[in-house]
Amino acid sequence: MAIKIALLGLGTVGSGVLKIIKNNQKKIKQTSGEEIVIKKALVRNLKKHQNVAKEIELTTNYDDILHDAEIKIVVELMGGLHPAKEYISEALNAGKNVVTANKGLMATFGSELIALAAKNKCDLMYDASVAGGIPILRTLSTSYASDKISEIQGIINGTTNYILSQMGEKGLSYDEALKSAQELGFAEADPTNDVTGKDAAYKIVILSKFAFGTKISINDFTIEGINHLQKFDIEQAQTMGYVIKLIGIAKNIAGKLFVEVAPCLLPNNAIMSHIKNEINALQIKSQSLGTAIFTGPGAGSLATANSVMSDVIAETSNFVKKTNGQPFSNFSRTMKLTSSEEVKYPYYLSFETEETLLDLSELFSKLEIPVREIKHVDEKTIVVTEEISRRQLQDLAIQDKYLRASYKIL
Amino acid sequence: MAIKIALLGLGTVGSGVLKIIKNNQKKIKQTSGEEIVIKKALVRNLKKHQNVAKEIELTTNYDDILHDAEIKIVVELMGGLHPAKEYISEALNAGKNVVTANKGLMATFGSELIALAAKNKCDLMYDASVAGGIPILRTLSTSYASDKISEIQGIINGTTNYILSQMGEKGLSYDEALKSAQELGFAEADPTNDVTGKDAAYKIVILSKFAFGTKISINDFTIEGINHLQKFDIEQAQTMGYVIKLIGIAKNIAGKLFVEVAPCLLPNNAIMSHIKNEINALQIKSQSLGTAIFTGPGAGSLATANSVMSDVIAETSNFVKKTNGQPFSNFSRTMKLTSSEEVKYPYYLSFETEETLLDLSELFSKLEIPVREIKHVDEKTIVVTEEISRRQLQDLAIQDKYLRASYKIL
Repeated sequence: MAIKIALLGLGTVGSGVLKIIKNNQKKIKQTSGEEIVIKKALVRNLKKHQNVAKEIELTTNYDDILHDAEIKIVVELMGGLHPAKEYISEALNAGKNVVTANKGLMATFGSELIALAAKNKCDLMYDASVAGGIPILRTLSTSYASDKISEIQGIINGTTNYILSQMGEKGLSYDEALKSAQELGFAEADPTNDVTGKDAAYKIVILSKFAFGTKISINDFTIEGINHLQKFDIEQAQTMGYVIKLIGIAKNIAGKLFVEVAPCLLPNNAIMSHIKNEINALQIKSQSLGTAIFTGPGAGSLATANSVMSDVIAETSNFVKKTNGQPFSNFSRTMKLTSSEEVKYPYYLSFETEETLLDLSELFSKLEIPVREIKHVDEKTIVVTEEISRRQLQDLAIQDKYLRASYKIL
Repeated sequence: MAIKIALLGLGTVGSGVLKIIKNNQKKIKQTSGEEIVIKKALVRNLKKHQNVAKEIELTTNYDDILHDAEIKIVVELMGGLHPAKEYISEALNAGKNVVTANKGLMATFGSELIALAAKNKCDLMYDASVAGGIPILRTLSTSYASDKISEIQGIINGTTNYILSQMGEKGLSYDEALKSAQELGFAEADPTNDVTGKDAAYKIVILSKFAFGTKISINDFTIEGINHLQKFDIEQAQTMGYVIKLIGIAKNIAGKLFVEVAPCLLPNNAIMSHIKNEINALQIKSQSLGTAIFTGPGAGSLATANSVMSDVIAETSNFVKKTNGQPFSNFSRTMKLTSSEEVKYPYYLSFETEETLLDLSELFSKLEIPVREIKHVDEKTIVVTEEISRRQLQDLAIQDKYLRASYKIL
């Protein structure tokens, strides 16, 4: 008896799922315990998908899927908060297991949906919602099940990493690099969510739940994208032996949780500095494993579809064993968020004008900011500090109107 | 009701398991579904372990564990083939689930033990047997469950990677680097299994089963260690932009499986080239994920113990759900091994003497070996070929007695 599933959406990822099931049927049956068949797909435009109408029943009406008792797993690939949330809720209430790749949805309504899945004894898995090409959520929930994570750092947005790589290596401007990313399909026509850091922020919210057991919202932390990053600073960082990457970070600082998405300077010799273009990477520091790094494609039809299929296979295997209804991550703990006094990093500071050393020195001295390096370049001023708190940084920004950019050095 | 487990061996890894269970009880209970308690441990010398005798019943008699119905999971950390194999078999026959970190055992008697576990409806897991600090086996069996792997390349022996890093970066001789590794605890007093490549070979046997579903034996492929590697060749590789690493490889070549452990040249800009000292890394190429790299510590008490605990937690979770008895990897397929004509790589060749270009050219021409680069250094000759088959390489070795070393270029 094959397991019947339904896809909500037949776009890039949906087509990837189709292709994988078609190509790897035998292995899928071995690993999941059952044959997996896509019975129905919800689409907006029936005509557009006529090429698959022979294999899959296409419908524009979700009720056709919801009321089909044969369908055991609903795979949500529509994106957006609504009606994705309503469709998933209805599926769970109808006793169907759910797989979703929707990071915005899980970062926003995750707790509610997870509770609903538990209530209905259904599976709700979403490995594809974070770094589709890196099996990170499943790894966090199994291989770190008895480990204590102290920090997770991620290059978790392929679009921005591509743009930064092109700016840093080929000397492109931000606009040129963005255009190149769009031409290659690494950036959408409207890249706002990517370049402002919002996409990475959703992912770090989900990662924080798995790594620290703690539920946060994207309103709880600072999000800075790369849309204000200047080529000048990328070049200056390079001359000092650093690469600028957009990093999502979640870190346990003395029992409290620090979360941020922002451009950061990484030393050239760090492995994370070698993660280029659309590639994603996650670096996890933990008590037992020390430092582990996982890297893979940041996007792409098959990469994301593969994570979706890992979830579909896990849910199928649970269905065969009659063990659906376990949460994707069991780890749960409450952590307070850090205050701005408690977070300390060395910072790269970029000032708009060539400030006099005397003025700067006095201000730094007043704010007790220790300086490692200071230099004038092209009538601008670059300062590298020793470790300072975010509070000190905020005070500096208030008192020196020429401070244009400040990036953590990791 | 806590799950009671027993450890066979209380050495480095065993102490790590103790420490992890003590430090992370709350998380372990959340993630496994039950409290986990070490009830008994088999040791050789009771006196040596008196410090833990208050918490754990120590015994020198395996029957005390085997006949204890309360013990649901036996964790084998003794190493060696015998009596580890007999103890595990008896545990499975007594209906106990088993976790082992024993790569030699699983590479040699894996099939037999896996069949025995299935017969007794017990779990047999061994994530710690390959690259303890990288959760690779569980990842292969879940996140690659619907993907088609074409190649797996690993730096899977920390000792040799440490030695090669020290030789390459600090200019140490092989003997100096080995001594340094021993002083730091990265190499055992008798490093034979590591430096001859045997340890890596065991691991690639297990990886081949998970990545390709195919059972092979260490007698099925070429194993070359680093014990004959000369500093001269490391330096020559460097001047040409390469790093030499000991690589275990398993690759699907036109439907047949190529497996080898040998020193290889990797280009400087490859991420794998930046994996230094005792760190391990695995690079997996697959249809859906393209190239993914996983890196983490190659050894260490807590890193290996963490993988052991992932297995213990998975088995506990199965016990709670009454689903023990599934194989660790369901993937099974028969692949023929490649013949020496079918495997082609570019090669780095090192000749003992300064051969005349004319002699070499004639021989290469006769054997149809295309040359990319040829140079004389210190009265020796270095040749970089284009892609040649292993058969061509073997012919060359027979016909030119001065060929001292040949390394694949990846």
